Amino acid sequence: MASEFELINSCFLPLSKGLQANELGIGDDGAVLNVPANHQLVVVTDTLVSGVHFPEETNAYDIAWKALAVNLSDLAAMGAEPGFFSLALTLPNNEQAWLGEFARGLTAISEQYSIPLIGGDTTKGHLTVTVTAQGWVEQGKAVRRSGAQCDDLICVTNTIGDGALGLKVAQNSLPRQVDNALSAEEKSFLLAALNRPIPQLLLSRLLSDYANSAIDISDGLLADMGHIFEQSTPGLNAEIELGQIPLSSATQKYIDKTQDWTTILTGGDDYQLCFTMLEDDFKTMHEKASKIGVELTVIGRVIESVSPVLLQDGEVFNQQGGELKGYLHF
Amino acid sequence: MASEFELINSCFLPLSKGLQANELGIGDDGAVLNVPANHQLVVVTDTLVSGVHFPEETNAYDIAWKALAVNLSDLAAMGAEPGFFSLALTLPNNEQAWLGEFARGLTAISEQYSIPLIGGDTTKGHLTVTVTAQGWVEQGKAVRRSGAQCDDLICVTNTIGDGALGLKVAQNSLPRQVDNALSAEEKSFLLAALNRPIPQLLLSRLLSDYANSAIDISDGLLADMGHIFEQSTPGLNAEIELGQIPLSSATQKYIDKTQDWTTILTGGDDYQLCFTMLEDDFKTMHEKASKIGVELTVIGRVIESVSPVLLQDGEVFNQQGGELKGYLHF
Repeated sequence: MASEFELINSCFLPLSKGLQANELGIGDDGAVLNVPANHQLVVVTDTLVSGVHFPEETNAYDIAWKALAVNLSDLAAMGAEPGFFSLALTLPNNEQAWLGEFARGLTAISEQYSIPLIGGDTTKGHLTVTVTAQGWVEQGKAVRRSGAQCDDLICVTNTIGDGALGLKVAQNSLPRQVDNALSAEEKSFLLAALNRPIPQLLLSRLLSDYANSAIDISDGLLADMGHIFEQSTPGLNAEIELGQIPLSSATQKYIDKTQDWTTILTGGDDYQLCFTMLEDDFKTMHEKASKIGVELTVIGRVIESVSPVLLQDGEVFNQQGGELKGYLHF
Repeated sequence: MASEFELINSCFLPLSKGLQANELGIGDDGAVLNVPANHQLVVVTDTLVSGVHFPEETNAYDIAWKALAVNLSDLAAMGAEPGFFSLALTLPNNEQAWLGEFARGLTAISEQYSIPLIGGDTTKGHLTVTVTAQGWVEQGKAVRRSGAQCDDLICVTNTIGDGALGLKVAQNSLPRQVDNALSAEEKSFLLAALNRPIPQLLLSRLLSDYANSAIDISDGLLADMGHIFEQSTPGLNAEIELGQIPLSSATQKYIDKTQDWTTILTGGDDYQLCFTMLEDDFKTMHEKASKIGVELTVIGRVIESVSPVLLQDGEVFNQQGGELKGYLHF
């Protein structure tokens, strides 16, 4: 295996561009970065393990994209602007073609969101990718999970459930009647949701301005929304109307044919944002978000309740088989 | 396996203490930290993989200690003061006793160097520990590898080679005549050098004030010193006198009996600092370092040369068998 130094130099050095003259990126014991005045630093860390967080056959480009995307999604949920990131890459072997593809995927997302790579470590072992990303918020403007208020609207970005169905496409495990109903484009859309999630960084500033609480949806809407209420004022919870949850055309077909809300609400890999806000501000925020291409949807409201309430056409909903019911009574 | 949230809460939450009131540690999508005025941020990342960077039977306390220590050593080499760190922990299973020991080791070193844990990620897989640590240097005062000047003294902290011999103790692979010659205390000292390295953070400020270049010795003195000359003005290199390299009593016995300098100079796991500086400043820096318990030794000088020169009693030295010779001609 080439030394850490060679690996980093050959593949990753170009990702370090974009730093200022008195900053230092890859190649020393540590990176040295400037700090914007009147801002706080936001730090996020996420690890992807091959065979756990992505199928082992996932290509290197997509692994790299996703490893950074899931971290940028966390920065977005805090209302932070991207700063820079470091990469800890554990690899079973030093296969140049694989590394080249990985670097190509990492370059693509790094350039798209203007976030340079500042260093890291490459080691030998089971394929594991840890990214630590740093960003900035204006002093005191970070959005926490803990700020939900009674009567807040509960909102999400774009559509929910596509990543979970993308995994079914990747594993060829869609029910046959759904598989037949989906177009090639719809399947590609679902796979892209799984492999190349789009972090909702465009929304960072608006979240920071308008949201009372926020979280990114990585483990499924119900679990992650649950974290908001675990950390906010006790006695509050969510009342959600299933019919209001925004679905892509592909996911709508899946629901129409299966009524399997469990997969949609607990499958994870959404990387959309769930947040709560004052009703009075929603119209303004919705318009501003639309202008930057982010669709916001109100899916429910914060109520006084010890557990979340799911409604379907106004009636309390429990998934047949009880899987979803388990989620509703943690 | 308990969820990420439960793991973090039960074991690691106490390590997040010491943050200011408007800062945020473990438990949200990201941590939020204050930034000292007129400072730059220094970021370092190191990964330890079980079976690669430590023997698989290493106890959890020592793994945790070392995972943070090697990162603090990188901060020290940059001349940085410790700020905070995040932890990406990949575990084969959720064994509470192991996690408890790991948290105990992490707490010990975190408290010793006043560096709080601010978050991270726990995942399932082969035991792999990635720490990303952040620190601060005064604006423009970071110490780089690239600043070595001709005629600089080459210095190291404390003693060299103890970690490499500690590995031989752990693996029970010391030559018999050495094993017989070492006291129980000497073997314990070598094991501690391997498993609980002491990051030379006390020296950060002095390095920042006096050193022209610095690196921490993790891969062996020769390899790491080599990185200084790869990155400094071309045509410079090191002239080192073996007899000046500071050795512990245990390592001196090993050398006396084996003359195996290859293990001492290339074995790695030292976590001492190697740096270059003006001769005129050495006396002052040496006195200041002694007062804080760090022994500094001049082991050689920066000369005009295309490769490093190792001397023994003034004669050019090449290890029998050629292993060291290979290192001297990269």
